[in-house]
Amino acid sequence: MRKPKIPEAAIKRLPVYLRVLEETAAAEIQIISSAELADKTGFSPEQIRKDLAYFGAFGTRGVGYDTILLSRRIARILGLHQGVHAALVGAGHLGYALARYSISRHKDVRITAIFDTDPAKIGTEIMGVTIRPMADLRQAVKDQNIKIGILTVPATEAQAAAEQLQEGGVEAILNFAPAKLRLGPNVFVQNIDLTIELQSLAYYTSASEEAAAQVVEETSSSIDS
Amino acid sequence: MRKPKIPEAAIKRLPVYLRVLEETAAAEIQIISSAELADKTGFSPEQIRKDLAYFGAFGTRGVGYDTILLSRRIARILGLHQGVHAALVGAGHLGYALARYSISRHKDVRITAIFDTDPAKIGTEIMGVTIRPMADLRQAVKDQNIKIGILTVPATEAQAAAEQLQEGGVEAILNFAPAKLRLGPNVFVQNIDLTIELQSLAYYTSASEEAAAQVVEETSSSIDS
Repeated sequence: MRKPKIPEAAIKRLPVYLRVLEETAAAEIQIISSAELADKTGFSPEQIRKDLAYFGAFGTRGVGYDTILLSRRIARILGLHQGVHAALVGAGHLGYALARYSISRHKDVRITAIFDTDPAKIGTEIMGVTIRPMADLRQAVKDQNIKIGILTVPATEAQAAAEQLQEGGVEAILNFAPAKLRLGPNVFVQNIDLTIELQSLAYYTSASEEAAAQVVEETSSSIDS
Repeated sequence: MRKPKIPEAAIKRLPVYLRVLEETAAAEIQIISSAELADKTGFSPEQIRKDLAYFGAFGTRGVGYDTILLSRRIARILGLHQGVHAALVGAGHLGYALARYSISRHKDVRITAIFDTDPAKIGTEIMGVTIRPMADLRQAVKDQNIKIGILTVPATEAQAAAEQLQEGGVEAILNFAPAKLRLGPNVFVQNIDLTIELQSLAYYTSASEEAAAQVVEETSSSIDS
């Protein structure tokens, strides 16, 4: 089910377009120009046209996009039109935050099963979803037709948990554990590593030596020229 | 302090290299080949060479990279060699999870100030860091030389909080609020939107219509050929 042809970055922008289109449609505005869509999403009109062209021609030149038609189309492209079930593995602080957030707000991707190893947590609920033992995971994923797994377990437990998700039939995993998962080619893995996010952010501050070096370099070249 | 020349994707890979190099150096292994670095990070040797070339030539052809020298160099490039202070705004479930995680593990990027609007939370501590009122934010960011802001506030409060971080002198923001921030050019913003992560992940499952369409397409072309 993997589709390598379309860049991941383009896929990541589709939900952003979707959100703006749905908001615009909800305000009973039928047409949005690519300039407006660009302003509201922060992406350039060229980028938007290019992204949407991957899925066929959309919109009318000089007019814009039909908000309802395009939002429906993007929802179908993403597979959100019929709702997607997700399983959360690891009900620690981050897992708890994600579960509360997802269960309360997402209608299209919804956490319908939660698993943890801690006997004290098993049997308790997060927003109406009961935390179950890891031993139930594989069968529950199959029974509930769960397609997405969210891993918020310690790094040492990530690989084993991911394998169980895979065996249950999960096709995509959002991995928050700082561990590189080794799975079969039919499981798409998206890593979100908060340490890496914070460390790479430091590059954009004056703490970075590279920043200082480039300032020097730019100064030198302006003296030379 | 923004450096647009090097792709963001390359900057995101640097902390991954750093982690592997530090682990390898800690195991008292002096040299790592680009093949080993590739295997442990999941990126291709070509990608690694290309990324490191942005910062000058590293490594010795046919030998590899000096683990200590390269890890030090990457730390300096990222600005992690001297430690970077971060402020967390919003001590809800996600904020709490991030604060606990960051304060306990990160030595190089460290949350040293936490802010919230809730009077019940103000004055309480997360891992030894006291939660303060929003009114203290600007001055505290200045006084503590905080360069990074982490926003875990509701979407409606994100812009105002971001502006206060900017006025205090923050240079980079990790924004978890589902809101597009409008700030000056000297503040780098990295958005992590969990709704978008989950929605885009659905594309890689069989729930996506595009997946089904491409399977049909591939089948047709193999019949044609």
